[in-house]
Amino acid sequence: MKVVLAFSGGLDTSVCLKLLQDKYEADVVTLAVNVGQDPEKLEEIKEKAEKLGAIKHKSFDLTKEFVENYVFKSIKANGLYEGYPLSTALARYPIAVRLVKEAHKEKADAVAHGCTGKGNDQFRFDTTISLQDPDLEIIAPVRELNLTRSWEIGYAKEQGIPIPVDIDQPYSIDENLWGRSIEGGNLEDPKNEPPEEIYELTQSPSEAPDPEVIEVEFEEGIPINLNGKKMDGVSLITKLNQIAGEHGVGRIDMIEDRALGLKSRENYEAPAATVILTAHKALEKLVLTRDELKFKESVDSLWADLVYRGSWFDPLREDLDAFIDNTQERVTGQVRVKLDHGSARVVSLESPFSLHEPELVSFEEFGFDQQESTGAIKFQSLQGRIFRKRQGE
Amino acid sequence: MKVVLAFSGGLDTSVCLKLLQDKYEADVVTLAVNVGQDPEKLEEIKEKAEKLGAIKHKSFDLTKEFVENYVFKSIKANGLYEGYPLSTALARYPIAVRLVKEAHKEKADAVAHGCTGKGNDQFRFDTTISLQDPDLEIIAPVRELNLTRSWEIGYAKEQGIPIPVDIDQPYSIDENLWGRSIEGGNLEDPKNEPPEEIYELTQSPSEAPDPEVIEVEFEEGIPINLNGKKMDGVSLITKLNQIAGEHGVGRIDMIEDRALGLKSRENYEAPAATVILTAHKALEKLVLTRDELKFKESVDSLWADLVYRGSWFDPLREDLDAFIDNTQERVTGQVRVKLDHGSARVVSLESPFSLHEPELVSFEEFGFDQQESTGAIKFQSLQGRIFRKRQGE
Amino acid sequence: MKVVLAFSGGLDTSVCLKLLQDKYEADVVTLAVNVGQDPEKLEEIKEKAEKLGAIKHKSFDLTKEFVENYVFKSIKANGLYEGYPLSTALARYPIAVRLVKEAHKEKADAVAHGCTGKGNDQFRFDTTISLQDPDLEIIAPVRELNLTRSWEIGYAKEQGIPIPVDIDQPYSIDENLWGRSIEGGNLEDPKNEPPEEIYELTQSPSEAPDPEVIEVEFEEGIPINLNGKKMDGVSLITKLNQIAGEHGVGRIDMIEDRALGLKSRENYEAPAATVILTAHKALEKLVLTRDELKFKESVDSLWADLVYRGSWFDPLREDLDAFIDNTQERVTGQVRVKLDHGSARVVSLESPFSLHEPELVSFEEFGFDQQESTGAIKFQSLQGRIFRKRQGE
Amino acid sequence: MKVVLAFSGGLDTSVCLKLLQDKYEADVVTLAVNVGQDPEKLEEIKEKAEKLGAIKHKSFDLTKEFVENYVFKSIKANGLYEGYPLSTALARYPIAVRLVKEAHKEKADAVAHGCTGKGNDQFRFDTTISLQDPDLEIIAPVRELNLTRSWEIGYAKEQGIPIPVDIDQPYSIDENLWGRSIEGGNLEDPKNEPPEEIYELTQSPSEAPDPEVIEVEFEEGIPINLNGKKMDGVSLITKLNQIAGEHGVGRIDMIEDRALGLKSRENYEAPAATVILTAHKALEKLVLTRDELKFKESVDSLWADLVYRGSWFDPLREDLDAFIDNTQERVTGQVRVKLDHGSARVVSLESPFSLHEPELVSFEEFGFDQQESTGAIKFQSLQGRIFRKRQGE
Repeated sequence: MKVVLAFSGGLDTSVCLKLLQDKYEADVVTLAVNVGQDPEKLEEIKEKAEKLGAIKHKSFDLTKEFVENYVFKSIKANGLYEGYPLSTALARYPIAVRLVKEAHKEKADAVAHGCTGKGNDQFRFDTTISLQDPDLEIIAPVRELNLTRSWEIGYAKEQGIPIPVDIDQPYSIDENLWGRSIEGGNLEDPKNEPPEEIYELTQSPSEAPDPEVIEVEFEEGIPINLNGKKMDGVSLITKLNQIAGEHGVGRIDMIEDRALGLKSRENYEAPAATVILTAHKALEKLVLTRDELKFKESVDSLWADLVYRGSWFDPLREDLDAFIDNTQERVTGQVRVKLDHGSARVVSLESPFSLHEPELVSFEEFGFDQQESTGAIKFQSLQGRIFRKRQGE
Repeated sequence: MKVVLAFSGGLDTSVCLKLLQDKYEADVVTLAVNVGQDPEKLEEIKEKAEKLGAIKHKSFDLTKEFVENYVFKSIKANGLYEGYPLSTALARYPIAVRLVKEAHKEKADAVAHGCTGKGNDQFRFDTTISLQDPDLEIIAPVRELNLTRSWEIGYAKEQGIPIPVDIDQPYSIDENLWGRSIEGGNLEDPKNEPPEEIYELTQSPSEAPDPEVIEVEFEEGIPINLNGKKMDGVSLITKLNQIAGEHGVGRIDMIEDRALGLKSRENYEAPAATVILTAHKALEKLVLTRDELKFKESVDSLWADLVYRGSWFDPLREDLDAFIDNTQERVTGQVRVKLDHGSARVVSLESPFSLHEPELVSFEEFGFDQQESTGAIKFQSLQGRIFRKRQGE
Repeated sequence: MKVVLAFSGGLDTSVCLKLLQDKYEADVVTLAVNVGQDPEKLEEIKEKAEKLGAIKHKSFDLTKEFVENYVFKSIKANGLYEGYPLSTALARYPIAVRLVKEAHKEKADAVAHGCTGKGNDQFRFDTTISLQDPDLEIIAPVRELNLTRSWEIGYAKEQGIPIPVDIDQPYSIDENLWGRSIEGGNLEDPKNEPPEEIYELTQSPSEAPDPEVIEVEFEEGIPINLNGKKMDGVSLITKLNQIAGEHGVGRIDMIEDRALGLKSRENYEAPAATVILTAHKALEKLVLTRDELKFKESVDSLWADLVYRGSWFDPLREDLDAFIDNTQERVTGQVRVKLDHGSARVVSLESPFSLHEPELVSFEEFGFDQQESTGAIKFQSLQGRIFRKRQGE
Repeated sequence: MKVVLAFSGGLDTSVCLKLLQDKYEADVVTLAVNVGQDPEKLEEIKEKAEKLGAIKHKSFDLTKEFVENYVFKSIKANGLYEGYPLSTALARYPIAVRLVKEAHKEKADAVAHGCTGKGNDQFRFDTTISLQDPDLEIIAPVRELNLTRSWEIGYAKEQGIPIPVDIDQPYSIDENLWGRSIEGGNLEDPKNEPPEEIYELTQSPSEAPDPEVIEVEFEEGIPINLNGKKMDGVSLITKLNQIAGEHGVGRIDMIEDRALGLKSRENYEAPAATVILTAHKALEKLVLTRDELKFKESVDSLWADLVYRGSWFDPLREDLDAFIDNTQERVTGQVRVKLDHGSARVVSLESPFSLHEPELVSFEEFGFDQQESTGAIKFQSLQGRIFRKRQGE
């Protein structure tokens, strides 16, 4: 049996790599993917995989694909799930797609991942894999064998699996170009205030330097220019993470409803995502009609649900994107954002598609007369007035 | 003809008071209402009304009614229209209701207000008046006579109407206990960054003192306790406006779709509202189910639309409040909020109705086994899988 | 071990009764409930239960409770799931509630039901039981032992379980006062037209007698009077099933998305439900405002989803009912419906809360002037006009 | 001044033609459009226009454009406003578009129409005209001069305008290929049952011949084949109107909320529309996922609102159509519909994109096991269970 395993080099996937050989009697090809972490880590991962018995190891830097095929669509959709910018969620898709592709190339019998049976990532991996190839077997050893963390550590010691130096670290962390998540430890209890030590990308807001105004330019819903310099997506987000992070922008502390229904306390750092999503939304308010804004809210909300729970390749996500893309043709313009001690406030907006008309002008130019508003008001309340009249009868 | 006029003592209503006497040949009773501004102003307003010929003047402090009957409901509904905490909107209702009530007491033939034909307040006044008494005539001289600001100033000079000292102030300002709005002048162009001078309730975020954590306690959706001290609504909001304002919290700069459809650039200061709405929403996320949160979003959004556009007394608002009230029975608990250089971040949550269960415990206690999640995932993607299979056929 | 089993006397529950004794080594108390079927069947069921070894048998006629606590709420909510009037779905709740109640009385260790692992009823039973008593064990032998129909027949023969005379009947049927469902056999393929033989409650539309107009009176959303005669719910529905059935009204043939996501072809007969739901909806259109009707559609749709998938006792269902009840206060009046060869068309409506005003009258009475509509039209298209102007620039 | 008038030859537009010359001192070009009525009428209209002083008359048969550009989109959107198939609404758009086009060709100063200030058509004309050319003046004499029907009859007599022979007909009728509307007279009171005499396209259901099953084939959401014969849209709808009309299918009697908010009692005949919309929706239920069906309901509902109230050329309608078109790629297949004494019931469905899988097969083929449903059920009710647990504490 030949299996391709999504391998990060952490405890879970290292244990899986061994177990797949020992319990599942499989030949294991390992796959490591970079989506914006430190690219040097790919080399370490490769060494580890080979040491632990992988028959082959493959590495891919998918950061560009991640940004252009997934993050850009999320920006257009104002992608927030209950306030969370979907960073880990979005990154799972290019990884799972690549996993299936490599399984086909390797003529593997199955793919494997190290997800537990409690979290969200199993939804994203399993669903994507089965929507890409409904016949491909999925092995999830941690879930199938109902493994606990302490069992894994014991097994790792026994099998000579190198244990990560930060194994005593109480927090569970995931990071990519679009954000960093921190959960676990005493953060689990929503009563506990997060300590300063959990943050890596953001300065403490009260320690931030003097406010700074930056400018982001959007073209058809996508950020293409930062502070007057045209940039590709990866560079722009990288640069903005650094600038906004210095100003303490992008900390998110929230209660989140996981895919399985558990409520979970989550902390995130997402400096660039916070600035870009704030700016994009403000620009939409300038160029889309009120009715478009209102309905797009429900479209965006459903889009984020689908992406959060693993359904990127569901036909409905594509239907929603057809709507979204149609609206984004006009989401073009400059947005200036003030980064000020942890907050990102839009202070200036310009667009060739602006629906804003200096008020008096528009009244004249569009042939309005202020008395005419009486009609609009009267008809708006017509049914309510009949309702009150009936009450009085 | 006898008319009761809602009278604030500003240019518009002073001009109306004169015009009602001169052009409409009416005896005018003036009505002044306090909803959280400086209560001493009521005395000045009275003097002005009498000097300008009112046959009678009546003053009411409706701040408590405003908070308990309107603001509290808005908190339960997370009342935000496109991001605006509805401060002016909410305050128009107790005034309009009182206007009708006094018109009845005075046996007046009509009520009058000073709204123009371009703004939102005419919707709130006209609709409320006509839903309270469909037969009561409404006179809106500025709108009916299509008056311009410069005409009004000329008329005021001519008629000896005292012109406000700040008449050259480029901004149009409205204030009450729930917030302060600033519009007009060069703020009208969304391209212009708001100058520091427009703010009165809030410190500049970068000048704010060291961060401070405050605690708000909610009972059935309503704030009842600040920093361990039980308070009535008026006191709590007053105190919180001061504390949060010092930390630069509550500045809002946005594009807003007015009732008539004009897009308008608006600035607000709402320190207490920002903190309370943020805290309330976070507490809801702890105690309401995911499905409740999701649907309540659409209820809240519609609620804010109705209140914004003048439809407080529409039957639908009451229907929505029945839903909202049912959910709020569990919105009880303590929320700690960090006020930090302009931002208000929830850092701690506690509630007897919390749906959060430390994860592992809940798996055992509720009889779950991590393998069981496989079923949930498979069925979620069932139709998608058939869809992909058909595509491949 | 003591178990209370929901027992209908059919093949599934008879097999369960035996298996619970043999494989689960349980003492079994059987529970039979009538929700509008032939009440004489309760006696037969009792005999069968005792013959098959039940240590005790309990019978309840819950038809009145079913109608007044569940069907009435469904009428107010225009209860239709994708077009299905929820008949079986609604009936599962009083049964499951009673099951838990009797388990407590009997101090049983568990409750049991005969549902398979593919259908909807397991959702309704399991969820209701666990929301009534999260600690009560649920045994579902057919699902747990992965039983097939042929295995059950073999086991029944072997164990001397009487096999229903209609075992060769290809259809699976469920019936209660609110409707009858028919599925299975060659109906499974949506390509096949249903044969006349599957219908029991309805005449073939083309064989129906001359059209007949009936009158239903509603009070606060509930039918209280049929053809001028005040009736309790059970009598009214019983009588209307008979009248409307004779006219061929109430046949439904549809594709349905089951709780697990399978698409299923379903046939229903629901004469009274069809007439009442049609009449109720028409009356709502007369008395509720346009905005209420529009939003209630989304409330009703979610309500039906929850009830279909077993979540009657979810807090969200109660929140939605608070909204619904508030709207129903005005849903009072007479509706005349023409039963005509399979169709039920509303032909006349009257209500003291009607929002209909003969047009011209209302224009005058409410102070409208037809020129005023110009204002309403202009403002409606204001943003669209600016949008077009920008396109032309 | 030169004006292009939409001219139907009826009383309103004939009076307008004269008034435009007399009161507005305009040279009038008349425009008559056929959208599926009797094409011979175009000749009569021309003669009338010329006799009444039009300086030029233009006729267009836009039936094909009406069907292919408007009706087809409405089918994909399941176009129903509160149950009304939008027949008149849809037809106004090609007329208004042509009116603007001809005004440009004729270098006219304005366009004119005969709508009153109470109905819906003024919304459709005014909005379409102003979205096509925001600077083109619109003259609506009946509305502007606040004309009444009796004044119009007097003026017609005085001016020698031929009065339609059916002027005493109490009903106001509009007809095109997609449907016929009847309103006014004693139908205005919802209490009155409509008399048989108002119907022209449909046989009385009780007089209908024996049931007949017809087959409609759809390709990407559009009907392309009737009873095995490929047909263009106009022919297919024409033929189906005749067949379904004979079976009494397509009568609609309803309360409708007009654009201005008035509730109105409306009767429609729409045989082909009823069959096609019923068949299309049933086919969608076979090929779209549950989540797509659910969300498309809200898209369709908003689409119908926009089209009803005149906003075809609003950007939001185009956004919605992008979503709709994406879903329709799979709405291909055969639908058989039984026309039976007034009702149209789908009895058979086939599609290459069907998501229906005979149940057992799918369980095996997709790797399901009936025990796995337990996981799905448990997680669905997880939050509800915690909620109940908290209640018990």
